[in-house]
Amino acid sequence: MDAIDFVPQYGKMLKNLDQWLVKATEFAKTKGFEPDTLVQSRLAPDQYSLDRQVQSACDTAKFSVSYLTGKTPPANPDTEKTIAELRARIATTLAYLETITAADVAGWETRKVAPRWLQGKWSKGEHFFMQMSLPNFYFHVTTAYSILRHNGVTLGKMDYIGSFPIQD
Amino acid sequence: MDAIDFVPQYGKMLKNLDQWLVKATEFAKTKGFEPDTLVQSRLAPDQYSLDRQVQSACDTAKFSVSYLTGKTPPANPDTEKTIAELRARIATTLAYLETITAADVAGWETRKVAPRWLQGKWSKGEHFFMQMSLPNFYFHVTTAYSILRHNGVTLGKMDYIGSFPIQD
Repeated sequence: MDAIDFVPQYGKMLKNLDQWLVKATEFAKTKGFEPDTLVQSRLAPDQYSLDRQVQSACDTAKFSVSYLTGKTPPANPDTEKTIAELRARIATTLAYLETITAADVAGWETRKVAPRWLQGKWSKGEHFFMQMSLPNFYFHVTTAYSILRHNGVTLGKMDYIGSFPIQD
Repeated sequence: MDAIDFVPQYGKMLKNLDQWLVKATEFAKTKGFEPDTLVQSRLAPDQYSLDRQVQSACDTAKFSVSYLTGKTPPANPDTEKTIAELRARIATTLAYLETITAADVAGWETRKVAPRWLQGKWSKGEHFFMQMSLPNFYFHVTTAYSILRHNGVTLGKMDYIGSFPIQD
């Protein structure tokens, strides 16, 4: 696998997520409700609402890339209250991803990933990526998608997958 | 990345999904409702219900591994109507994944993936895996999880992630 392949994939999915928020805003206008009421919507009372799903998707991408490259990520205080602010959060995360070079990524498979919540223990880069980062990232992205679908926003599988390289 | 790493990850997530169905069955018994009523539950009227989410998660794992290895997958006619049958479907998929060897997987990154729905075109193995297979697989796994959470089943993030290799 091309070593740097995973950084653009986080970015692509965050761009897709951004477009769902655009479609949600348009849907709200068509239906005549305030788009930002969607921000506190959730699928279960003990699951994160849309704002926390978007923040968590951004953080999973940001911190994963940081752990796997050693490049310090920007701080984000989780203060977003509107769809516009959530879109700005996504843009901040994308800007960070764009600073990552192939040289930053080199050796990620064997890097020791030791986030604070592992309390001094660590996980090998390739294990962290495949077994923690990606499942968690897609969890928050998909749950954000499902919250919007549950509220009637017209989205389909290709909005979720996005563009996809095919050849003749 | 260890080339064969992705096959066990599909398997681990399917085993996690199986355990959510066990927990859903126990939850239904505690609440005094028929567990199989959950099978037709969905988050939006135009989204797949639980049965199709489980079938699609199984199919995404099965066909992805088939495309990336060239090993013929078992046929599954999508006739499951109960949680017990969905668990059997998962078991069938896991049994197929267990037949895959490191030799089968070798060269997956550059394999031409040409499912019928690409209508004669193809995608390079590593692109198909990262940009189609994994997002789609986690989509169906996460949506199955969210359908159960939406119906009150007690599940948490570690039920979703499952076991995870860390070291001292």
